[in-house]
Amino acid sequence: MTETITDRPVDTLGTRTEVTRWLADFEKALTARDIDAAATLFVEDCYWRDLVAFTWNIVTVEGIEGVRDLLAQTLDRTLPSGFAVAEELGEAAADTESWIKFDTSVGRGLGHLRLRDGKAWTLLTTLNELKGHEEPKRDRRPKGIEHGAVPNRQTWLEQRRREAEELGHATQPYVVVVGGGQGGIALGARLRQLGVPTIIVDRNPRAGDSWRKRYKSLTLHDPVWYDHLPYIDFPPNWPVFSPKDKIADWLEMYTRVMELNYWSSTECRRASYDEAAKEWTVVIQREGVEMTLRPKQLVLATGMSGKPSLPKIDGMDVFKGDQHHSSEHPGPDAYSGKKAVVIGSNNSAHDICAALWEVGADVTMVQRSSTHVSRSDSLMEMALGALYSESAVASGMTTQKADMTFASIPYRILHLFQIPVYDAIRERDADFYARLEKAGFMLDFGDDNSGLFMKYLRRGSGYYIDVGASDLVANGDIKLESGVDVVRLTEDAVVLSNGKTLPADLIVYATGYGSMNGWAADLISPEVAAKVGKCWGLGSGTAKDPGPWEGELRNMWKPTQQEALWFHGGNLHQSRHYSLYLALQLKARMEGIPTPVYGLQEVHHLS
Amino acid sequence: MTETITDRPVDTLGTRTEVTRWLADFEKALTARDIDAAATLFVEDCYWRDLVAFTWNIVTVEGIEGVRDLLAQTLDRTLPSGFAVAEELGEAAADTESWIKFDTSVGRGLGHLRLRDGKAWTLLTTLNELKGHEEPKRDRRPKGIEHGAVPNRQTWLEQRRREAEELGHATQPYVVVVGGGQGGIALGARLRQLGVPTIIVDRNPRAGDSWRKRYKSLTLHDPVWYDHLPYIDFPPNWPVFSPKDKIADWLEMYTRVMELNYWSSTECRRASYDEAAKEWTVVIQREGVEMTLRPKQLVLATGMSGKPSLPKIDGMDVFKGDQHHSSEHPGPDAYSGKKAVVIGSNNSAHDICAALWEVGADVTMVQRSSTHVSRSDSLMEMALGALYSESAVASGMTTQKADMTFASIPYRILHLFQIPVYDAIRERDADFYARLEKAGFMLDFGDDNSGLFMKYLRRGSGYYIDVGASDLVANGDIKLESGVDVVRLTEDAVVLSNGKTLPADLIVYATGYGSMNGWAADLISPEVAAKVGKCWGLGSGTAKDPGPWEGELRNMWKPTQQEALWFHGGNLHQSRHYSLYLALQLKARMEGIPTPVYGLQEVHHLS
Repeated sequence: MTETITDRPVDTLGTRTEVTRWLADFEKALTARDIDAAATLFVEDCYWRDLVAFTWNIVTVEGIEGVRDLLAQTLDRTLPSGFAVAEELGEAAADTESWIKFDTSVGRGLGHLRLRDGKAWTLLTTLNELKGHEEPKRDRRPKGIEHGAVPNRQTWLEQRRREAEELGHATQPYVVVVGGGQGGIALGARLRQLGVPTIIVDRNPRAGDSWRKRYKSLTLHDPVWYDHLPYIDFPPNWPVFSPKDKIADWLEMYTRVMELNYWSSTECRRASYDEAAKEWTVVIQREGVEMTLRPKQLVLATGMSGKPSLPKIDGMDVFKGDQHHSSEHPGPDAYSGKKAVVIGSNNSAHDICAALWEVGADVTMVQRSSTHVSRSDSLMEMALGALYSESAVASGMTTQKADMTFASIPYRILHLFQIPVYDAIRERDADFYARLEKAGFMLDFGDDNSGLFMKYLRRGSGYYIDVGASDLVANGDIKLESGVDVVRLTEDAVVLSNGKTLPADLIVYATGYGSMNGWAADLISPEVAAKVGKCWGLGSGTAKDPGPWEGELRNMWKPTQQEALWFHGGNLHQSRHYSLYLALQLKARMEGIPTPVYGLQEVHHLS
Repeated sequence: MTETITDRPVDTLGTRTEVTRWLADFEKALTARDIDAAATLFVEDCYWRDLVAFTWNIVTVEGIEGVRDLLAQTLDRTLPSGFAVAEELGEAAADTESWIKFDTSVGRGLGHLRLRDGKAWTLLTTLNELKGHEEPKRDRRPKGIEHGAVPNRQTWLEQRRREAEELGHATQPYVVVVGGGQGGIALGARLRQLGVPTIIVDRNPRAGDSWRKRYKSLTLHDPVWYDHLPYIDFPPNWPVFSPKDKIADWLEMYTRVMELNYWSSTECRRASYDEAAKEWTVVIQREGVEMTLRPKQLVLATGMSGKPSLPKIDGMDVFKGDQHHSSEHPGPDAYSGKKAVVIGSNNSAHDICAALWEVGADVTMVQRSSTHVSRSDSLMEMALGALYSESAVASGMTTQKADMTFASIPYRILHLFQIPVYDAIRERDADFYARLEKAGFMLDFGDDNSGLFMKYLRRGSGYYIDVGASDLVANGDIKLESGVDVVRLTEDAVVLSNGKTLPADLIVYATGYGSMNGWAADLISPEVAAKVGKCWGLGSGTAKDPGPWEGELRNMWKPTQQEALWFHGGNLHQSRHYSLYLALQLKARMEGIPTPVYGLQEVHHLS
């Protein structure tokens, strides 16, 4: 014992003891079911974020009353124990922080603790695996062959083929995932590892088509270290920003080698839930043939962006050129030398404008409201670099630790961490922003200057990650009409609210997407969509993110007001990390493990 | 400096200093071109194994005279410098060992040093990368998008398609690799990263078919940790022993995501080398159409096992049942209830016998000569576990370190490391071996009791890794005729040298493979095959590995007597590790870097 202590430098010794003491005190209070004692271990303005471990929900409680309430409702059945420093996750980022681990009655948890004056300021608890249902990986990996002599042995291929033939026909999947993009695929991989029979249905012919079919200049705006799927990292030669066709090929490969039951060319037509039988009826059309699946759980993974929003504009029926939503835009090649009007000023609008300009189209961007712009290099260096970068990897940061670090900051105070980052970006790129504004571009940094990532969480829109288009806007190569709206279309032009008429061969509506529950309205019923309510957004009360405060993304990866209906989506980082918690929730239900939900969210907005 | 030293435990301090001092002395001697001084740093019975760094060859020199000779012929142009402990590879396995790094005039090297009494006993030097031609990975990875506005930009997909369309037509590959199994694929991936235009031709319709098309019960006999390809590790859920169709799918996906120019359904018909033009003419038939490729380098990666050896037996033309070489065996399904005779007693023979028995065939194995058998579990635990296992990974062993550790033991003394392992296996599995021998099985552990891996290196045959068939042999379920040969076939039976007649519906010739230079005879000419000579084998003078002593595997991954002709192959471990050195040799030649070969092997055997 003495040796262990003297081995450590003096400055971490104090904190170590503080963390260890806090964990011991917390465990003692919880074991004694002494909620009063537990509550005294938190500072007044504390946050406890729980991902499934205590709450069978994704929820953040705030303040001592929040902690008391969570414990009062969950302690007796969670039976937490074994709180300890998670040495296997390495050192935490600061002296007053620590990775932690613990057990519950049914699983093993990991988490993170930030102390202030010896008390918990932020606590993250996550369920990492279910006891008795650990994933068959590393030292639990399958052997691949049953040694010995086995009469009428079935090979791996024969077993795999039989499963694929029977599932959905002779046997029913426990889960149907609608949508086979990155979200559906990542979740499908986790469920496969947990032994949850799952079918992913996707209307496209090939896995990866959700990327492959988009405009040809598209690349991921997030860097590779942020984008790994579960289980298989991108190789070290993978580009920083994946071109869309390359990520599409990767997803297709991944789907294959992870042995997902991925039904391509399959459209989900309608679904209804039988509350008595606790079962969905899901009608699909697979390669033209209608059939019915009867899963216990239904996951909509049709894209966090939801359904394309197409504005209603007078004259859309008389315009004789091409017009389509950005999600349908094929790329610039057919429009060389043509006049294009792109309505919108977020990521897709910028990408499409730049690609059209590159082939020699005459391009005008119609900016209807202000937009945040961050230069990609600045974001990489100043916002993501500490967790997701080559240098982070070189200094021992793993994807798991980065994801957990990210998750450890409560949404309520996340903007406070973000504002200084964007202040610094604004200063660093002052000339860039000045040029952009001089060209008439309406720029913002979010209602509270917290920048891009908060906009993503709050509203999923309102920004452009600059990879080159902003210079074209600044120097006038991409013409800009800002602070205007479209009044009407003629046969060959767009008429704006400032009185200008823009001749057009092509109109692209880069006008965004609705809430994911729009898919539920289409597939299930408007009633169920209304019962579930809006997806995404934190309830921050900022633009397009109406309150009340929710504290977590609405309806994402957690129970909704509709039993057995789940929403999964987000960027590759979110699809990777949160698919774990959704998969564990589904697995627990399949195994009949009690999953009483603490803090099921109320519905305040329909869409 | 003082702090650094006092930080280290005392026992490694001495060694550390010893290693550091040796490296400093070695560098000093080499810098002064003082071969006498350098030679005094080695013990009498020393070994220096060099993989390309000093010799542009794969060669081991022995004894002080060997060291002197190598230095005399390579020192002036190699200009080695910067010898240091390679801290980035971590701690070596023992106190008297160390990972080392160094520079040469053209590249950066890694290596390993074992001291005895302060002098070098074994020295491994390997070329790890060429200066100015580093692979675009990690912090050199491509960005994936050229930021900014680029008129007439080509997307990744467009560039990739154009390259695929032009290569072999408008442009010529620098390298053609014949054979797209694991070897050709691993090499192709390395060459792609090094920017060496390469086409891999394979006669099968799909990458992976070299596994996919083999007998259906086949799984890899090597465990997953031993089998990783370069750049992308198998995921943590991958089976210990890959079923053949699963590894086939992995190879196919790998080929795709690594963007290899893999020409499937393409047969190499003939090749000839123009000594004046320094160019090959390679005639291929691609999807039925004949065309000519003109690469500078030709790699035969058609399988280290070479061409199937089919015995010539009287009556093969009158036998009316099915008969085929093990490489053509489709699996057991058609032979349920039938009588099968399998000629041979190595891996394939055992696997095929067991699979036939499992479907209810009546199976006889004809053992013509003694065979080594090791139980898979024993091999995993006692022979491979320290380098290639889950526990090795958990304790920090990386694939690179494992491969380099393996490579650091000179072949001349490798059997001395192996004999105690197999002595222990023999003791551990004494009952198992007793039962086998009691059933009449002719068992051996190699001429010098060095077991399976030495047999693999020396002759590439003569063993079975038991995954269950041996029990069937021992208990008589698989009938055994041992110490006999086949005299002739009748219409429906096999007649043995012991006078017995075995009725047969099926005969499988599990009779092994010839030397890889047999492919050269077919594709190029018998003259070139003879000029190149036998591939594989160490020249140990043991059974089927005639001397003189070579010290390295003949013709593998290194220059041959035929300019611009190379052989690549081996198991997944070898394909992974040695493809690096072959790729660097090819890259250097493409870039016009001088590559004078030290110690080009002589030819002593034609096949």
